[in-house]
Amino acid sequence: MTKKLTTWVEVPPQSDFTIYNLPYGIFTTVDRSPRPGIAIGDQILDLRELMRTGLLDELGMPLGVFRKELLNDFIALGKPVWTRFRNRVIELLSEGNEELKPHAAQVLVPQADAEMKMPVHIGDYTDFYSSKEHATNVGKMFRDPENALLPNWKHLPVGYHGRASSIVVSGTPIHRPKGQTIPAGTDKPVFGPSRLLDFELEMAFVIGRETALGESIPVEKAEDYIFGMVLFNDWSARDIQKWEYVPLGPFLGKSFASSISPWIVTMDALDPFRMENYPQDEPVLSYLESKEPHRFDLNLEVAIQPDGGDENIVTRTNFKYMYWNICQQLAHHTVNGCNVRIGDMCASGTISGPTPDSYGSMLELSWRGQNPISLSDGSERKFIQDKDTVVMRGFGKKGDIRVGFGEVRTKVLPSN
Amino acid sequence: MTKKLTTWVEVPPQSDFTIYNLPYGIFTTVDRSPRPGIAIGDQILDLRELMRTGLLDELGMPLGVFRKELLNDFIALGKPVWTRFRNRVIELLSEGNEELKPHAAQVLVPQADAEMKMPVHIGDYTDFYSSKEHATNVGKMFRDPENALLPNWKHLPVGYHGRASSIVVSGTPIHRPKGQTIPAGTDKPVFGPSRLLDFELEMAFVIGRETALGESIPVEKAEDYIFGMVLFNDWSARDIQKWEYVPLGPFLGKSFASSISPWIVTMDALDPFRMENYPQDEPVLSYLESKEPHRFDLNLEVAIQPDGGDENIVTRTNFKYMYWNICQQLAHHTVNGCNVRIGDMCASGTISGPTPDSYGSMLELSWRGQNPISLSDGSERKFIQDKDTVVMRGFGKKGDIRVGFGEVRTKVLPSN
Repeated sequence: MTKKLTTWVEVPPQSDFTIYNLPYGIFTTVDRSPRPGIAIGDQILDLRELMRTGLLDELGMPLGVFRKELLNDFIALGKPVWTRFRNRVIELLSEGNEELKPHAAQVLVPQADAEMKMPVHIGDYTDFYSSKEHATNVGKMFRDPENALLPNWKHLPVGYHGRASSIVVSGTPIHRPKGQTIPAGTDKPVFGPSRLLDFELEMAFVIGRETALGESIPVEKAEDYIFGMVLFNDWSARDIQKWEYVPLGPFLGKSFASSISPWIVTMDALDPFRMENYPQDEPVLSYLESKEPHRFDLNLEVAIQPDGGDENIVTRTNFKYMYWNICQQLAHHTVNGCNVRIGDMCASGTISGPTPDSYGSMLELSWRGQNPISLSDGSERKFIQDKDTVVMRGFGKKGDIRVGFGEVRTKVLPSN
Repeated sequence: MTKKLTTWVEVPPQSDFTIYNLPYGIFTTVDRSPRPGIAIGDQILDLRELMRTGLLDELGMPLGVFRKELLNDFIALGKPVWTRFRNRVIELLSEGNEELKPHAAQVLVPQADAEMKMPVHIGDYTDFYSSKEHATNVGKMFRDPENALLPNWKHLPVGYHGRASSIVVSGTPIHRPKGQTIPAGTDKPVFGPSRLLDFELEMAFVIGRETALGESIPVEKAEDYIFGMVLFNDWSARDIQKWEYVPLGPFLGKSFASSISPWIVTMDALDPFRMENYPQDEPVLSYLESKEPHRFDLNLEVAIQPDGGDENIVTRTNFKYMYWNICQQLAHHTVNGCNVRIGDMCASGTISGPTPDSYGSMLELSWRGQNPISLSDGSERKFIQDKDTVVMRGFGKKGDIRVGFGEVRTKVLPSN
């Protein structure tokens, strides 16, 4: 289906950043100000310098689009431009093409020399709750094991508005949040650092096309409004959330930080990993009926690395476990006329698989702390400790084609 | 306490826009592109033109700050600049000052000729739930009349993240949202236009100073981080919200639109209406202890105007009925390290007074539709009908000093 591609850039085996991928990010080095780039192997293709070579002139793109420090203006050029540009970059990087090679020293930057920045300005951030296994696990723990899913869950992709300001890029350390929690057996809250800090393994899509207020996106058109995807760590303070969240939902238990991977992998690059939608066991209203395949087979994992220690993989799961797909989520989000803007981010909710070693949060992996997880240094984890680093990774693989997200890596510092 | 001020600009009696007010907005006319202005009487002081007169040179402000189409860059100059600039504008507009008068034709624009635009870019929008009477009324209707307030309510200002993209300025019509609702006595949702569209009378403050991720704002410093306030109509589709909101809070029942008044009234202008804080009947954790007065005596009202008909005032209430003040809200919002950005908006939650004619929503005024409200044209309202216009107004008055917000006026169009 996909044509076999090879590149003259050296790409190590098992690299996430093959010529089939070509994800977009914003990077900076000691002598390059923040600017758009594309990851290829261990290198970054500097798009500002690429534009200066004149090799993109035939595309007729605005010359200033890569002089920006965010990708929003490039994304705003629209899907036909994304595709033409991608095809031209594939051509320039392909084995046998000699156009770009003479400029290699100018346009290629080692990733090791670069620092990654936030790739887009995020207008609004929405978090869904679309893994049936996760919602079931949480329902079993906190509500009724016999009726773990709430009545609305199979009729609509439950979601809520999150905080956009506190989304940070991989590599940015976060502080353990402080807040109100309620000690067991009392009715008076106490104040202090959260004792139940958790990750949530999620993926998020990035809006690529804006709508007007009052407009709705039909489910089968929704992918046209999506630029690409990132890994998303929806940090959660379970004890703060538990006390605050009734009746209006999560607030300070989430808004202290969320972390994303720096490279936006485009929907074009994810196409080889497309699969039939999750078999939904309740009929849905027609605006949510999704017949075309909008589900993706993407392997995901989370590692915990204690301070100065080794990485311990604590879960392996897959994006395919999502009950609601991204098109259903976006159709639902806009069915009331809510407008979306370029750069808006919609996260999946915690992605849990069917087995206990494929759950997407410590809450589930340790089952509220009842089953601590043993690490290679002999220590145990119920939740995340100060100075732990949490690393999430993800990739698709089909035959020779490998497309990955890199990682989102975050160190947890003690409370301020 | 406040010095008596008079201006050479004609200010009609009962004008919201006296020389004590001087609120900021963004306006445009047929021959002026969108730009910052200050309301005075029935006029707008064009700040871009004011800058060109040279009469602000002594302030040393960046020359381009009023060439922007939003107020964020002006606000970013900081509180000392806001105060110096305000004092200079008071001086220039004062009776007896002759500096600006010769430029009047150039710098003053009739409000009748202007269209108001969004005053700021809103990064994030948060909605609180801080009126005890409102939370009690809702609790009585939907939960337990004997235990109307949830256990956390008096310990923290409950809040949730809202949608920033769909906040529109007064004068922008909105469409009745469509969505899923659950008919009484069934367990299968249906799809269609909301039948229970409601306003919520709120006020919102605008962040004037950013914080870093991980930083918290102390309660007694919080006003330094607030630029000013607007009227806020938190449109709500009660039937959509009821079905969707468990367990993660309001989503599509709110995100179709919120409406704000176009003029940001500064904290300096609101100072005369300051009063002792609401007497809280439970002790709070120390980070929420607010001893200085951060409550404001501001009269509020809502009118419904049927298509082609007269305005009917359906409620009169006051911002002083807020149990949690704006400084407690902002201290709580940031206690977990959540960062705020200039232009972020924090709404109060529905402001209901103690008597049934002072409730801030149709839900409460009609008590879930049990007590319809009679309008002057003989019709009745349980909720808001298509083609109704909802108008909110607010002002403070103390002796000769009157400072008002103008209005937020929104017509409801049928579903798309």
